Amino acid sequence: MTEKDIEVMQKLFSPGNVAVIGATASSERVGYNLLDSLIEGGYKGKIYPVHPSLKEILGIPVYPSLRDIPDRVDLALVALNRRDTVEVLERCGELGVKGAVSLAGGFRETGEEGRALEKRIVEIAEKYALKVVGPNTLGIMNLEADLNASFYPVRLKKGNVSLISQSGGIGFSIIQKCQDEGVGLNKFIGAGNRTVLEIADYLEFLAGDAGTRVIGVFLEGVENARRLVQAAGRVARKKPVVIYKVGHSDDVNKATLTHTGSMAGPYKLFRDIFNQYGVLLAGSVAELVAACKALSLCQLPAGGRLGLYTYTAGPAIVALDGLAGREISIPAPAPGTVRKIKAILGEDLPVILKNPIDTGGLGTRSGTYGLLVEAALNDPNFDLLATFSCPHKNWRNPTSELIEAHKKSGKPLLSCYISTIKGVEADREVLQQAGIPLYKSPEETAWGIAALVHYSRGVECLS
Amino acid sequence: MTEKDIEVMQKLFSPGNVAVIGATASSERVGYNLLDSLIEGGYKGKIYPVHPSLKEILGIPVYPSLRDIPDRVDLALVALNRRDTVEVLERCGELGVKGAVSLAGGFRETGEEGRALEKRIVEIAEKYALKVVGPNTLGIMNLEADLNASFYPVRLKKGNVSLISQSGGIGFSIIQKCQDEGVGLNKFIGAGNRTVLEIADYLEFLAGDAGTRVIGVFLEGVENARRLVQAAGRVARKKPVVIYKVGHSDDVNKATLTHTGSMAGPYKLFRDIFNQYGVLLAGSVAELVAACKALSLCQLPAGGRLGLYTYTAGPAIVALDGLAGREISIPAPAPGTVRKIKAILGEDLPVILKNPIDTGGLGTRSGTYGLLVEAALNDPNFDLLATFSCPHKNWRNPTSELIEAHKKSGKPLLSCYISTIKGVEADREVLQQAGIPLYKSPEETAWGIAALVHYSRGVECLS
Repeated sequence: MTEKDIEVMQKLFSPGNVAVIGATASSERVGYNLLDSLIEGGYKGKIYPVHPSLKEILGIPVYPSLRDIPDRVDLALVALNRRDTVEVLERCGELGVKGAVSLAGGFRETGEEGRALEKRIVEIAEKYALKVVGPNTLGIMNLEADLNASFYPVRLKKGNVSLISQSGGIGFSIIQKCQDEGVGLNKFIGAGNRTVLEIADYLEFLAGDAGTRVIGVFLEGVENARRLVQAAGRVARKKPVVIYKVGHSDDVNKATLTHTGSMAGPYKLFRDIFNQYGVLLAGSVAELVAACKALSLCQLPAGGRLGLYTYTAGPAIVALDGLAGREISIPAPAPGTVRKIKAILGEDLPVILKNPIDTGGLGTRSGTYGLLVEAALNDPNFDLLATFSCPHKNWRNPTSELIEAHKKSGKPLLSCYISTIKGVEADREVLQQAGIPLYKSPEETAWGIAALVHYSRGVECLS
Repeated sequence: MTEKDIEVMQKLFSPGNVAVIGATASSERVGYNLLDSLIEGGYKGKIYPVHPSLKEILGIPVYPSLRDIPDRVDLALVALNRRDTVEVLERCGELGVKGAVSLAGGFRETGEEGRALEKRIVEIAEKYALKVVGPNTLGIMNLEADLNASFYPVRLKKGNVSLISQSGGIGFSIIQKCQDEGVGLNKFIGAGNRTVLEIADYLEFLAGDAGTRVIGVFLEGVENARRLVQAAGRVARKKPVVIYKVGHSDDVNKATLTHTGSMAGPYKLFRDIFNQYGVLLAGSVAELVAACKALSLCQLPAGGRLGLYTYTAGPAIVALDGLAGREISIPAPAPGTVRKIKAILGEDLPVILKNPIDTGGLGTRSGTYGLLVEAALNDPNFDLLATFSCPHKNWRNPTSELIEAHKKSGKPLLSCYISTIKGVEADREVLQQAGIPLYKSPEETAWGIAALVHYSRGVECLS
């Protein structure tokens, strides 16, 4: 991407005004929901709905055509059928619009006519230097600009994680999981058919985007795999890129071809190449979000030696199981740590001073929890620590103790609060603001750990 | 298990009274929380707290010793340290108590002294025909009897899924996930060290338990693997058994040894043997619960041919990806179904009439949704159907349409509502009462599908 390209992309994601072509008063339709999303998202710029006859939708004055809008349009959202979409994109080009999102499906994924229309979009984009997102997309969001230009009217938590998704449905599933996990979002890009802008373009744009610290990608398949892998690898030197990629069977390959028009391709090949380039691969939406969460909140560990501290053995064991085969080192605690813990709890007690360190029932007492975690976190054998506890009606969650110990040590600390029976949203908010991710399952904790260690290793070997 | 054994087990899980030995007024301690759990769970029988000096705890009169209790005790909960536990179990035996739960840890998992004490428990149990759950356990629950005899004071949704867990923490994590998924529970058994009662015993008991339709198990490792596998296989002929087993690495094997005193053992060996015996294996808490949910709610499919119906391609593709390698057949829809769908939507529309059937934007309209799902569900090529939709502020969820179509067809139907932004709890309740499991992610939907198909196949080849 040239500097000029990046400038256009910035305007596309932070537009001074937005036109919605194909706006309608029918609440089931995309054209209505784009308007509703702009309002719901709190967009502060000017909104120009376009419809040949309506005067007002959702309280906003409507313009009969693109030409009648008194401004130069920064972002055109096109919610028309496939044939009219192509017409309007040409009008956009003529009027000097530089950024558009084309929502409609029905292009190359459905056959010959769609393919021909999509070729026209490429020609128009080239002729007018028009950047087009989609077609066949959920839309885009930029929470920094209070812009929800998707047809899902929601207002989301702001943060430093940006997402690129080839699928709207899975994109939304990732967004939802981020919300459920208290992971703040920066930008969302529904890549759709990637007719003009490819995933590699979005990666390059986000690499230079100050608000984005971590990039999560849902991938079905791409035409130019080499360009994607190289771009992802380049971007991964600057900030973490986590990719969730489908394509484990022929059924999936056939289905992706009819979805956004490209084969998923051999999964293992992708995995090996991504590994080589320092790009992280996730196996599910939950893993993608768990990885993004850790990378969004934690400093990187100085090495890959993990300590586990718990008073409930099973969850620590499940986390260990989730780390099996991921080349994370689980060293024994240093003799000094064992001495410290014995000094806190007494010599002759049924606690397990290996790794995981398991203090059993004694570990639940609020008086000693902070001292124990501090001892574990400061162990010179550990580069990062994961703690496990179980919210309980009559026990205080060890939230303040975790924050205190973390402040003193400077090492990455991840916490797993098994179960949400008591409700852990308030604790999560406080912990995550202090840079300690809170996970509700040991499996997700393991994925967060693996992402931190693997990315820090990748940084080493790439830099 | 003999008939007499089963009778004793039934009394243990449906006791007329419960003694809590080691009851205390300190809310951080297990002895207090057992009492709190009995109250919170709504237990209707008599509760006898035992403490040498206290007069009343949580409003309940306290007895100075087991001997002072005016009743024959049906269930003794022993919340004392390991040495006193052994003493009290002997008293239980002498007094003719037949069922006990021993909560304390500190037995063979911590070394020689613990091992010796545990041997004493075995001797006592044999001498007095005393059934002991644990030690080193979270406790037991029987929701049918409003009995929460664990030290986690919660009240849970009742249903037909029973759980056996070797770990309290993971047991609780499974319970919590069940609650989050609207999966009702029947019994929970924290197996702990399995000193007297082994997992095979619990399986055999639950096999004959009328309230239990599905059995979920979390397993670390066992001493007598042969007995476990044979018991699980025998039980699986009567009702589904889903096992989540850790043990993917040596680190895990070492950790399980110091947890409940047994090695996890070679994972692949377990998997192959379980498969052979018709026992289902899950890879995570989420998968265990997804499988139990489908088996709890759905009738079994007549075969393994799956149809997928969606208006958002990505989630159906992710579900397909989750099914890769699981030998589920994904046949094309029958010509009659394609004709029906065209008759509903029109001939020349950009919809994909393969499998997944993807009606794109047209599929979101409430007027036609029911007709489309009905057409898909009645396709003679499909033995079961999964549908995917995306809750949205301005669209009605297709809940009533799914229920209507399901009623008419008699085939298993699983629904995936991507995202919970709108809140889907009310829809979930209604759908699940109608026998349609609702999943919030396509990965979990795939696990539910796989469990149904695999169990129905197992039933075929075993019967």
